[in-house]
Amino acid sequence: MAARKEGECCEDLRRERAKCSFNKEELTYLMDGGKDKTLHRRKIEDIFLADPEFLDPIRPEYMSHEERYNNELRKACHMIRKFNENEDMQQLVGEMEGIRSLMGSGLGVALTKDGNPLALHFVMFLPAILGQGTVEQQGYWMSRAWTGEIIGTYAQTELGHGTFLRGLETTATYDSNTQEFIIHSPTITATKWWPGGLGKTVNYAVVMAQLYTQGKCHGVHPFIVQIRDEETHQSMPGVTVGEIGPRLGMNTNDNGFLRFNQYRIPHTNMLMKHSQVLKDGTYVKPANDKLSYGTMVFVRVAICFDAYRQLQRAVTIATRYSAVRHQSELVPGEPEPQILEYQTQQYKLLPQIATVYGIMFAANDVWNTYNEVTGNISEGNLAYLPELHALSCGLKALSSTDATNGVDVCRLACGGHGYLATSNLPRIYTTTTAAITYEGENTVMWLQVARYLIKSYHDAQKGHRLQQSVSYLTTQSASAHATADLSNTALVAAYKQAVSVMVSNAAAHLQDHISKGAVFEKAWNSCSVYLVKCAQAHARYYTCEKFVDGVNRAELSEGTRTVLLRLCRLYLIYHITINQGDFLRSGALTGGDISSLEKEMADILAALRPDAVSLVDSFDIHDRVLDSSLGSWDGNVYQRLYNEALKSPMNQTDVPQGYYKYLRPLMKANL
Amino acid sequence: MAARKEGECCEDLRRERAKCSFNKEELTYLMDGGKDKTLHRRKIEDIFLADPEFLDPIRPEYMSHEERYNNELRKACHMIRKFNENEDMQQLVGEMEGIRSLMGSGLGVALTKDGNPLALHFVMFLPAILGQGTVEQQGYWMSRAWTGEIIGTYAQTELGHGTFLRGLETTATYDSNTQEFIIHSPTITATKWWPGGLGKTVNYAVVMAQLYTQGKCHGVHPFIVQIRDEETHQSMPGVTVGEIGPRLGMNTNDNGFLRFNQYRIPHTNMLMKHSQVLKDGTYVKPANDKLSYGTMVFVRVAICFDAYRQLQRAVTIATRYSAVRHQSELVPGEPEPQILEYQTQQYKLLPQIATVYGIMFAANDVWNTYNEVTGNISEGNLAYLPELHALSCGLKALSSTDATNGVDVCRLACGGHGYLATSNLPRIYTTTTAAITYEGENTVMWLQVARYLIKSYHDAQKGHRLQQSVSYLTTQSASAHATADLSNTALVAAYKQAVSVMVSNAAAHLQDHISKGAVFEKAWNSCSVYLVKCAQAHARYYTCEKFVDGVNRAELSEGTRTVLLRLCRLYLIYHITINQGDFLRSGALTGGDISSLEKEMADILAALRPDAVSLVDSFDIHDRVLDSSLGSWDGNVYQRLYNEALKSPMNQTDVPQGYYKYLRPLMKANL
Repeated sequence: MAARKEGECCEDLRRERAKCSFNKEELTYLMDGGKDKTLHRRKIEDIFLADPEFLDPIRPEYMSHEERYNNELRKACHMIRKFNENEDMQQLVGEMEGIRSLMGSGLGVALTKDGNPLALHFVMFLPAILGQGTVEQQGYWMSRAWTGEIIGTYAQTELGHGTFLRGLETTATYDSNTQEFIIHSPTITATKWWPGGLGKTVNYAVVMAQLYTQGKCHGVHPFIVQIRDEETHQSMPGVTVGEIGPRLGMNTNDNGFLRFNQYRIPHTNMLMKHSQVLKDGTYVKPANDKLSYGTMVFVRVAICFDAYRQLQRAVTIATRYSAVRHQSELVPGEPEPQILEYQTQQYKLLPQIATVYGIMFAANDVWNTYNEVTGNISEGNLAYLPELHALSCGLKALSSTDATNGVDVCRLACGGHGYLATSNLPRIYTTTTAAITYEGENTVMWLQVARYLIKSYHDAQKGHRLQQSVSYLTTQSASAHATADLSNTALVAAYKQAVSVMVSNAAAHLQDHISKGAVFEKAWNSCSVYLVKCAQAHARYYTCEKFVDGVNRAELSEGTRTVLLRLCRLYLIYHITINQGDFLRSGALTGGDISSLEKEMADILAALRPDAVSLVDSFDIHDRVLDSSLGSWDGNVYQRLYNEALKSPMNQTDVPQGYYKYLRPLMKANL
Repeated sequence: MAARKEGECCEDLRRERAKCSFNKEELTYLMDGGKDKTLHRRKIEDIFLADPEFLDPIRPEYMSHEERYNNELRKACHMIRKFNENEDMQQLVGEMEGIRSLMGSGLGVALTKDGNPLALHFVMFLPAILGQGTVEQQGYWMSRAWTGEIIGTYAQTELGHGTFLRGLETTATYDSNTQEFIIHSPTITATKWWPGGLGKTVNYAVVMAQLYTQGKCHGVHPFIVQIRDEETHQSMPGVTVGEIGPRLGMNTNDNGFLRFNQYRIPHTNMLMKHSQVLKDGTYVKPANDKLSYGTMVFVRVAICFDAYRQLQRAVTIATRYSAVRHQSELVPGEPEPQILEYQTQQYKLLPQIATVYGIMFAANDVWNTYNEVTGNISEGNLAYLPELHALSCGLKALSSTDATNGVDVCRLACGGHGYLATSNLPRIYTTTTAAITYEGENTVMWLQVARYLIKSYHDAQKGHRLQQSVSYLTTQSASAHATADLSNTALVAAYKQAVSVMVSNAAAHLQDHISKGAVFEKAWNSCSVYLVKCAQAHARYYTCEKFVDGVNRAELSEGTRTVLLRLCRLYLIYHITINQGDFLRSGALTGGDISSLEKEMADILAALRPDAVSLVDSFDIHDRVLDSSLGSWDGNVYQRLYNEALKSPMNQTDVPQGYYKYLRPLMKANL
């Protein structure tokens, strides 16, 4: 593709690319997981991006809310048809896993832009049936859903209830006389709220509701509920459904609301792989109620991958722009330098490139562990689940926060132009930040991690053996830091020592509150700001360690390893300088150490500067996926900004309608 | 107004308001600048908000780009007509200053929502003529502009040139034969880009261009340039003008681009209050070229005021919502608590309330000093200008960053609902963050502050007397911190000591680079990340000091002073804990001190908790100005969210058009 060819770029970028000190393709393969996967990805991208059906007539931002929805629905339907009608395509994309990952991938984002009304059908509805339905249920529903004969979504969150699952109010009451469940929304806060595609698109939903049978509540269970008539698409009697209106971002999806008024569904529509309600109303408990942990780990690690991909896009745009943009003076009288020459600009961008790799190595590690132990889980070996759960919570929160902040830094690093929709940075920001809230709000995630840390700390006090990721908690009385050793190993050890002391302090604070008479939960709340900091420090340590391990283990040529080691080093130092108090107070590092590291960081920024553009090139993001006037491969920034502006519908006429209607009467009023 | 009356609210908020420990009105008066001003503001708000012409038919987010523009133009024109046609109104709003401040005020934002095509006419065009035109020019242009007979904007920034004024490329070449200036855009990067109202609305603009006369360039000067025909509103021959397209926010304004092709304007259109070009082409220099500093100070302090008003809105919304929202468990078995009970939530919101006051006191201080010395400036006493300039740069950067981050924290503190447009938090965020970039990009601002700090440091070394805000730089070898004194005075002293040591370190780093052979500018760049940190620490110290002074000086009853002192204390401690490394490394505080402060902070959060809702009530923001389903006075959150969703145009029909066009063919394809 043109977007990846050398030589077709502006002089500034040509010169940057000539300076590259490493093998770009090696890093691309590393991120994709191998050369085969890179080539495969490029092939699929080329096929889909060549299809003119995926082009927008104008940018969605110019359209009305409803036009935006229609335009995305058109493209989403085309994507599925293209996939269903073409066996080669199915083989290429790779069956089930394929269309799902296509929907959520960078390519999917490029095709359907800002939220896709059919995404949750593949990403949540089908997996819910597969994960929670019996074999018969899978057979019946999957065959209908797979072809698109029915379209579904997943409805859990309610207007008044988010993260706290037990608080959900929607009820499913079994009536053994008719062998039906009665789905009901008893209050306004019970209204289902948020599910993608729910407003206008889907005719079915997996609805999470409090199960009542034989007069007793058994907690939240999944039910397949028909929302709209299969012939007319009209909402069913007893069902009130609609869309929830505009949002900060993802406005091309019809996120919806849903209310039930004593709405009856057949007994067979409860998904019964785990729990069951027999026809007479008897409730049968699941064999193992920890199994749902697995899905959460899966979803949260997927969010980490998505987070670093968003950050890749943002930092690619900002870095290329910073090599093309010239501004101010470094030395009076000399021409305006590329803004990438400024240390402050390097400090904004290069740590983001490092963060991409940090998240990648840490998330890969959890992903691999998850896949290794999944076998064990089904065999009933649940020992790893608490650790995996804590790690996935911590990395979900860390990666969504870091990516959001990083995207924002990138946007601001592009000055005013970063505020323009055609830079694509606004859309990347509004999409990335949503992950802070969904699938487990980050503060809740941090407190889950903290709970695991405190529990592990007490286990260690009792002499129990700890799991690998928290084993440092057993060695908190570690020997003092050996001055002058600031190697990567020593810095990772410093991270461990800092968290270890913090966790120990947190445990002491908790004990203090309890000994003064507070119940545990109140004591916990009184320490929770500090507990969140412990959890953040733990996730950071873990990411640092996996970054160092990952670089050491990767098969790379010497030049490529050198540049990756520099990024790793930058990551370690960057976060020490930001959280220096933790290192000083724990005795992990001295003020002198930190001064040395600050100076080293300045040197690393300068050393990485010549490779900056090549580093983002190696992310190998197609121009159509970047979708940015500032970030395209050729660096033709100003002409693109101008050309994009000319496309505005308002620029198709010289004098706007509003002039005749409003402005002229005002301007001529006094003449 | 109903929005301010007691008693008409939900039970949660009623209970919160009953707990109030202070006099709300006192704080309202303090922020408005006196009781008279509060009453006056309320009166104007009541009049304008009662006018149905300012209502939107539907939320702007549902409209197309052009519909949004037309809708805002309608309201903006109505606002001016209402003002021009009504003498009582003119007296009430208060002449010139009135309509300007109305346009930019909270009320203005409530009326015209998300950027106003006529705002720059009042906020930039008229002031530019007043500030830079001769008496004759003022007479001619003001009379035409004041009535709306002509509408203007201010065009400085170019596609390729922002903060660095000397880099502007647009030229104004004087032709003494015809006594005209030839305005020209020599390159694509010379295209004027960004001015509000420029795209479709204005027919005139003050254009900043490089002045050439008698073969010599004299730098950037202002020219009044006609953009569109006064009769037809068509763009003039030689002028290419249009709008720049959608943005992250402020999408109801027609920000525009502008290019000139050898476009001639009369000699009289150069604004000549300061510099002049005589008819024969002779250039006459301004008597004093520092005078433009004054306008910049004015604009940047105005941004501080705007920043804290935006933060007020966001924290009002998030705090009220946090008192209404119930979630999870604090103690198992008990009902779900208000989320405001969680320490982590208090830690998100209460520092934002403190920040509002911190910015207010610091900005007021600079504002007052500015007004005091403006007299001196016109008398030629420029001694205070460098200090005022540095302070206004620092506070502009600090307040826009703090407000943006604070607004984002507030949005995220509302979970998913904060992502909804009807929460109004998205719009508050996208508006607030723009101030990080405009009127002096923040990194550039910080480096200006750093330049002043380093210069002052060297002045001190030479034994010169320093200005008040940097006088602490003379006392860097201050006696070590007296343990156990953690009074406000001691903490402000600690702030000073920390910055002092940092500035001294920065100076040493600079010297180090220079003695190794670097020219000053390169040395400066090599230290600039650290220099930015010095500047940030200085602005923070200054804000802390003015916060403490401001609370001490305000005339308040005891209860009100107590709550304000708590906020002040929270502010001092909060920023110490975030930047603890600076305090530890400078010896300003010990690890033990910081531990004590951390514990105290937990106590302050708990102490402020019962007053949280009353504190945001005292900001006295009308429901229509808040414009939020989550933040309204009555706390009827869920019903409002639901009702707002029902208004979506897509919810006016059950089955969407897109179903017949795209979805049905897909769903029925295999049947």
